[in-house]
Amino acid sequence: MADAVVAARRESIRKLAELKSPVPADIDVAQAATVVPIRTVAAACGLTEADYEPYGHYKAKVSEKVSEKLKAERGEGYYVVVAGINPTPLGEGKSTTTIGLAQAMGAHLEKNCVACIRQPSMGPTFGIKGGAAGGGYSQVIPMEEMNLHLTGDIHAIGAANNLLAAAIDARVFHELTQKDEALYDRLCPRKKDGTRVFAASMLKRLRKLGIDKTDPDQLTAEERAAFARLDIDREKISWRRVVDMNDRFLRKITVGQNPTEKGYTRETGFDITVASEIMAVLAMTTSLADMERRLGAMVVAPDMKGEPVTADDLGITGALVALMKDAIKPTLMQTLEGTPVLVHAGPFANIASGNSSIIADQIGRAMVGAGGYVLTEAGFGADIGLEKFMNLKCRSSGMKPHCAVIVATVRALKLHGGGPAVSPGKPLPHEYTNEDVELVKKGVANLTRHIENTKKFGVPVVVAMNMFPTDTEAEHAVIKEAAMVAGADDCVLCTHHAEGGKGAAALGEAVAKACEANAGADNFRLLYEGETSIKHKIETIAKELYRADGVSYSEQAEAKIAMFTEQGFGALPICMAKTQYSFSHDADLKGAPTGFTLPIGDVRCSAGAGFIVPLVGAFPTIPGLPTRPAYYEIGVDMETEQVLGLS
Amino acid sequence: MADAVVAARRESIRKLAELKSPVPADIDVAQAATVVPIRTVAAACGLTEADYEPYGHYKAKVSEKVSEKLKAERGEGYYVVVAGINPTPLGEGKSTTTIGLAQAMGAHLEKNCVACIRQPSMGPTFGIKGGAAGGGYSQVIPMEEMNLHLTGDIHAIGAANNLLAAAIDARVFHELTQKDEALYDRLCPRKKDGTRVFAASMLKRLRKLGIDKTDPDQLTAEERAAFARLDIDREKISWRRVVDMNDRFLRKITVGQNPTEKGYTRETGFDITVASEIMAVLAMTTSLADMERRLGAMVVAPDMKGEPVTADDLGITGALVALMKDAIKPTLMQTLEGTPVLVHAGPFANIASGNSSIIADQIGRAMVGAGGYVLTEAGFGADIGLEKFMNLKCRSSGMKPHCAVIVATVRALKLHGGGPAVSPGKPLPHEYTNEDVELVKKGVANLTRHIENTKKFGVPVVVAMNMFPTDTEAEHAVIKEAAMVAGADDCVLCTHHAEGGKGAAALGEAVAKACEANAGADNFRLLYEGETSIKHKIETIAKELYRADGVSYSEQAEAKIAMFTEQGFGALPICMAKTQYSFSHDADLKGAPTGFTLPIGDVRCSAGAGFIVPLVGAFPTIPGLPTRPAYYEIGVDMETEQVLGLS
Repeated sequence: MADAVVAARRESIRKLAELKSPVPADIDVAQAATVVPIRTVAAACGLTEADYEPYGHYKAKVSEKVSEKLKAERGEGYYVVVAGINPTPLGEGKSTTTIGLAQAMGAHLEKNCVACIRQPSMGPTFGIKGGAAGGGYSQVIPMEEMNLHLTGDIHAIGAANNLLAAAIDARVFHELTQKDEALYDRLCPRKKDGTRVFAASMLKRLRKLGIDKTDPDQLTAEERAAFARLDIDREKISWRRVVDMNDRFLRKITVGQNPTEKGYTRETGFDITVASEIMAVLAMTTSLADMERRLGAMVVAPDMKGEPVTADDLGITGALVALMKDAIKPTLMQTLEGTPVLVHAGPFANIASGNSSIIADQIGRAMVGAGGYVLTEAGFGADIGLEKFMNLKCRSSGMKPHCAVIVATVRALKLHGGGPAVSPGKPLPHEYTNEDVELVKKGVANLTRHIENTKKFGVPVVVAMNMFPTDTEAEHAVIKEAAMVAGADDCVLCTHHAEGGKGAAALGEAVAKACEANAGADNFRLLYEGETSIKHKIETIAKELYRADGVSYSEQAEAKIAMFTEQGFGALPICMAKTQYSFSHDADLKGAPTGFTLPIGDVRCSAGAGFIVPLVGAFPTIPGLPTRPAYYEIGVDMETEQVLGLS
Repeated sequence: MADAVVAARRESIRKLAELKSPVPADIDVAQAATVVPIRTVAAACGLTEADYEPYGHYKAKVSEKVSEKLKAERGEGYYVVVAGINPTPLGEGKSTTTIGLAQAMGAHLEKNCVACIRQPSMGPTFGIKGGAAGGGYSQVIPMEEMNLHLTGDIHAIGAANNLLAAAIDARVFHELTQKDEALYDRLCPRKKDGTRVFAASMLKRLRKLGIDKTDPDQLTAEERAAFARLDIDREKISWRRVVDMNDRFLRKITVGQNPTEKGYTRETGFDITVASEIMAVLAMTTSLADMERRLGAMVVAPDMKGEPVTADDLGITGALVALMKDAIKPTLMQTLEGTPVLVHAGPFANIASGNSSIIADQIGRAMVGAGGYVLTEAGFGADIGLEKFMNLKCRSSGMKPHCAVIVATVRALKLHGGGPAVSPGKPLPHEYTNEDVELVKKGVANLTRHIENTKKFGVPVVVAMNMFPTDTEAEHAVIKEAAMVAGADDCVLCTHHAEGGKGAAALGEAVAKACEANAGADNFRLLYEGETSIKHKIETIAKELYRADGVSYSEQAEAKIAMFTEQGFGALPICMAKTQYSFSHDADLKGAPTGFTLPIGDVRCSAGAGFIVPLVGAFPTIPGLPTRPAYYEIGVDMETEQVLGLS
């Protein structure tokens, strides 16, 4: 550990000994912190200058290639996933707990520790904001960089997504307005010497068509037409454009209305950038070559015969990789107490995996080495985030977690127990601000089901009770007892929001104990095999984890499942798109509901990211701005150039 | 000068002594180069670590604040603008000459020298590409970074532009669907203790309305309505969304078609990001505080009474500044021969200023210090780029150029002389590949008029004849004689594309001589005063520089001029939106046309950037992709991670 980092941590801890109560605004805590130059943090992680690129003085992009080298030198650290009970409007503090736990293990227990978290979208930063960099005395800094451009990964995803979108409409247009031979001659133009060659990017399409000729002049007229005409079904283009802002007026639009497009208008829409399949690819990929394969496999539309048209068919895969070659490198930052943090990817947790990237976790585990700890966060409740962590992320990476942390709060469990609804801006009903042991007893079933579910994967569970000032000991005792009965290894109270890493030291010790106890074991198992039918996989998740009685399928869902199976995508794992507020499909069914049938309305295929997405309900893929958006508060101090008003 | 830079330059020059002929592809030359770590380049420029932030090992963002400090220490260098004759499809090599000249002055003549160039849009990189980083042995490296994300400035502009766009439609929607009091209460919500305050960002609108109350509860019902209701004229919203891709299907679209938007659809469109007024603001601004003022002054639409609605009225200015706070810092890069280059801004040359930023030029002049040289490029032909450099950029910055370089080629002047049309991909007509002194004699009038025009600003001119292998001495002699008669200080042959800086050393000596001769003089003058009428300013440019007989105005143009004058924008300078291919409005009128009337079809106002834009014709503000876009060639080497196929 570099002396400068140790000194900075001591300084941070000394400052934190002068904790303010109540805790000041997040940005005030963050901007008052001691920030260690990122090269010092990197050196303390054992990275050489060739291993990373600085982006300013406090962020760096770490090469995706270092994990192999470091792993050979140091081995791999324990792998801990942090998940939560089903979220409520009260906030459970899952990100804050991940960061607080990292501070505890790194700065207080003096273990090698890295937290791996997702990059937040900028849309909500300017709309309705919930902190994405932790909160209170458990934060990633500089928090304003974390919440704004960071190192540009989301911008890169937006550019790649929109290049592909532009390519699709332009190709359709050129095919509609040109005859076969003209199209072919423009795709394979002659050089000044009269010869012509295929671009390397065209070879994949030629192979797909079963054409093994390499001289464009040797193709028959039929082969030329097949090569040049993708014959995209314009009515069924599934690839949408993206923007990283809450722009509700782009949800459904008509494009191509300028006379230059000759009347070929089409209805489509924008998603928010983090909902792009390219973001899902970034989170699931394991190397540059794997990313190239995944990007090329992305399906943008069916052709007129119903066959999938991919990025590879458009010859655009290499350009997408060129746009994404820096984004594949996670961003190294630090906590308020100098613990290294890798920020990478931020896929939607409903329509995508909701976890940070495999690559960041791989780098983190190699960076901390044997005996160290990587804490990685799974989005939403454990029924979604942790299930996808196991069945999608670990399936793809081959990594096996040593321990899962499940975060719960007294207040949220009261809501699961039938407490009155809460709404932002209105005073909390008294049940939440006064002791109510009975409500906690009723609600704790939500937590215990998550514990039982997690243990089905063969992973030990430590429960983190994230303390609020209005909690009582009797309420904590109810939670702890229920958690232990459900099979948790431990259930620990923590106060990291108000106290920083010190407040999560006991949690850190429990996590370390669980990991060490699990070190030699080989209990990890996935919930289903890929090689079963799509329906069987959906039903396994629905019955085993959600505890549904069964699953029903709309006609559309039935047809899509048949089509994807026919197209050869049946062996892909499942990425459920379900509300995060309940184990069921109904957000109002709090606690641990039973006796419901899970309705699948539609099914999508993310062939590049590598999963089938059953839709349990409809999900807005681009939020809107409220009447008073967060941007009213945001500004820059003209003297210090510090960003103001982020929360 | 740091030893490491000197050593690297010697190494580059040694390598260049082994020049290949014909010159290899740009990317091959660029990737074979010796790249100096950017911190070494920065140190050689006298920058301390606090003055810049590294972005990777070969790019850095330089604080906009260093110019004042360095200027006090070192004084300011000579200021040289590089412009060209009216462009032709043959390419004149203006960027390449700027870079070649920088290499000559920095690495061969051993002067302190910085080149200031624009950041290219990524759209054309994947569409139809002309190198934006120079070419041959005169390039900015790493060229793939230059042509892709660079340091994210264009992404920041896109985010800011689209946040503002989302805010406009969302605000209109909320005003359409809420009554005055509800709207006001949502804009100024009560805190838990029942009080409420205005956000700091709301004070500008209150002042504009003449309301000096600071307690939201003290406003009358009428004042509340006036504050809360911007009353934007939906039919006349001029602010458009942007994307940094060639996406022709977004030229004209209908938004708001999702049922959630309750039928409030609207026709609008996307521009390419570099056409955003925010890009124009970035190029014209002089400090963070000035940028804040300009962003706040941007007009997005008229209200129902015809009054301009601004970003300040939306309370969004601070958020725009937060998004743009890194983009205001120019990016430091280097030439193939280690000369520092500042890359910053890239506004369209027709609807905006077409020049790189004032801030980069200020930093550059302070960095090179007294006796050093800053070379800054002006887009398109000198009738547009150089005119805007003088009348817009220098007017705003107060800086005065010591010399103008005008780049010309034998081939392009032949085309201006009436040579046959050329089209890409077809063999060149023999006139261009064989001596034709008569054609050059006819075409040189295009060059001489640019020389005469430039001298009207009181600035000496050096002509750079950018040599092609098919040129002959007799043709060069014609150009030189005509240039000297027209008043050029010198006319120099250069071969930097094939030979690097060495090939522009004579040009460098001529430029140095012209600057030194002009050092003490105070001949610089602007073409018009701001405080005259809009029409008088337009007519001055049209008659003095374009040599039009007069100007005609459409009804729409007349109405807009009256409106902008009424709104108080009459004193702004003029940013002509005219074809770059001719002095006139007609691209086919080559050479030095006379006897035409300049037709103004429409007029816009860029109140934030600070100019009135008369439209002489229509300009596509987002290009399209051809049948075979450049992206077919682009990819990444999986081993080296180098980008392939950029040109």
